[in-house]
Amino acid sequence: MNHPYTFDPLPQPVVERGEFAFAAIGLDHGHIFGMTDGLIGAGATVTWVFDDDPERAAAFAQRYPTARIASSEQEVLGDPDVRLVATAAIPSERAPIGLRAIEAGKDAFVDKAPMTTFAQLEAVREATARTGRKYAVYYGERIHAEAAILAGQLIERGAIGEVLQVVCFGPHRVGDGRPDWFYDPARYGGILCDIGSHNFEQMLYYTGAADGRVSTSTIANYAHPDTPGLQDFGDAHVILDNGTTGYVRVDWLTPDGLGVFGDGRTLLLGTDGYLELRKYIDIGTDNGSGQVLLVNQEAQYRFDANGMTGFPYFGQLIRDCLDRTETAMTQAHALKAAELSLQAQVGAITLAP
Amino acid sequence: MNHPYTFDPLPQPVVERGEFAFAAIGLDHGHIFGMTDGLIGAGATVTWVFDDDPERAAAFAQRYPTARIASSEQEVLGDPDVRLVATAAIPSERAPIGLRAIEAGKDAFVDKAPMTTFAQLEAVREATARTGRKYAVYYGERIHAEAAILAGQLIERGAIGEVLQVVCFGPHRVGDGRPDWFYDPARYGGILCDIGSHNFEQMLYYTGAADGRVSTSTIANYAHPDTPGLQDFGDAHVILDNGTTGYVRVDWLTPDGLGVFGDGRTLLLGTDGYLELRKYIDIGTDNGSGQVLLVNQEAQYRFDANGMTGFPYFGQLIRDCLDRTETAMTQAHALKAAELSLQAQVGAITLAP
Repeated sequence: MNHPYTFDPLPQPVVERGEFAFAAIGLDHGHIFGMTDGLIGAGATVTWVFDDDPERAAAFAQRYPTARIASSEQEVLGDPDVRLVATAAIPSERAPIGLRAIEAGKDAFVDKAPMTTFAQLEAVREATARTGRKYAVYYGERIHAEAAILAGQLIERGAIGEVLQVVCFGPHRVGDGRPDWFYDPARYGGILCDIGSHNFEQMLYYTGAADGRVSTSTIANYAHPDTPGLQDFGDAHVILDNGTTGYVRVDWLTPDGLGVFGDGRTLLLGTDGYLELRKYIDIGTDNGSGQVLLVNQEAQYRFDANGMTGFPYFGQLIRDCLDRTETAMTQAHALKAAELSLQAQVGAITLAP
Repeated sequence: MNHPYTFDPLPQPVVERGEFAFAAIGLDHGHIFGMTDGLIGAGATVTWVFDDDPERAAAFAQRYPTARIASSEQEVLGDPDVRLVATAAIPSERAPIGLRAIEAGKDAFVDKAPMTTFAQLEAVREATARTGRKYAVYYGERIHAEAAILAGQLIERGAIGEVLQVVCFGPHRVGDGRPDWFYDPARYGGILCDIGSHNFEQMLYYTGAADGRVSTSTIANYAHPDTPGLQDFGDAHVILDNGTTGYVRVDWLTPDGLGVFGDGRTLLLGTDGYLELRKYIDIGTDNGSGQVLLVNQEAQYRFDANGMTGFPYFGQLIRDCLDRTETAMTQAHALKAAELSLQAQVGAITLAP
């Protein structure tokens, strides 16, 4: 059915080429490519890369020829032209790297989960408050997913009234060749802290809540007895401070018959309708990714979000770094999502099959 | 994709016409028609109807000409040929009617929610244990929905391995012309007790659990300020005794643009795949109701369950009444689902918008 909405224009680069330099330190997770591509797409230039693994750094520099391979983290942090340090290191190492970047006068841009302990969270809160530097977080399942961005625009336009609940399903596939840290909860942070963090961010974002509390959460290793450190299931219920709720299930149980890494969904219930995001696949169809289904008081609508929104986060982040504003995502919001993730993880009941 | 499954044969009538007589007492909810149709389809004969509202009783007798209109409940209960008394009275009245039927030597078949208080639950447990009579419950969203029945058959055949989690969404439309009791939680029992009870039954059924506990639950009236007794939202998280989990959201917020009363869904996560039931509509498509989507280690499959399973519950219930067996649903299971519903309702946090 034809829809009545006019969406935001596609984002454009926000700086001239060479005007905003950033570096990549710590390439353990492939998200570093999404982070880098996003920033470059908004006009930034990656000028350095550093990783403990020289081969990984070399591969990065081959992909992004503007990036010189640094011999040490210090070499990167000592370059005054570098404004932002992006990292997708092992989750437990992200806060140390980000904090060193902040102490060197840079802004930090860390993959989610942005930290794995409450002590790291407090250190980040202290450092960002003291220095005014940013500890931005790549919550890619919202800021780098057009279905999720389109949903935000539809909600802004009143398509479902007031948002009452955010439900997320984040199934993932283990696959082959995962590194050791993938199976060590002390390093990946636990399933609710790690992949769950995406969803706590979405609960805060879509409901507009500033805070919340985890009312219950569970974790389990149901189907991976050979890797007992892998939590292959987690779920959590959250009561937000504005009287709305959130529920998330994450798992590492995507079956082989699915053509993508996971059937990620977001269900947004409003006073006057609801949205369903089928982010990576619409099972049983050839619709592809990025499907946004809307049912409201008027009708049912289906949107293919691919190409509709672009990724405004990255340009906003660059401008925020240059202008010292908070348009991409507030520091409080990014860290509150992490705090809920840690609460859910630390308080989780371990289920035994 | 072609599927490898062979399903159960369609159920056939289990008695000769006239061999199994039942009565309907209390027609407040339209579910009485589903209950009656199901029993008749399995071979039973409705021989009496009683309702405080003579017009409602007359309309029932017109629809089912084998039913005589009784002048009192006692007239029905005094007929030794009546084996089973079906009721879809106001929820708070179902247990009293069912208990009077049991004390008269009949089996009872009550619409869900089967009771609205713990005192009624205890009275039913006592009476059924003492007399051996049945207090069967019409959990129609499973036993009278072919998508739900087909899912059970697929699980029996190992299609998704061990079931780890049951998530249910039960949105409903308020519509016009609801009776007073619809807005009085003392009579309808509260949203988690009432429409939520369907879903607690499904959690127990699909996971195979015998017991569980509600770890958190909430209720709200978000969008109906003129009817403060209407809980238009409720959700609950359950940890089952076999280490699995359940989550349910129910609401009275179906928007006008949906062509059916509600976009009921059930998501069943297993060790080796998952099922999604789109029970009444498959939004954004013309697929209709009864859609069962299966993704497992082999492939993705879509089933249109309409006409595939029939409703074996009713014939099993009739045979259970005649043979004093428990094949349709055990008494313990039916009442455990009700107990979880009451726990969720009584323990619910009331959210304020």
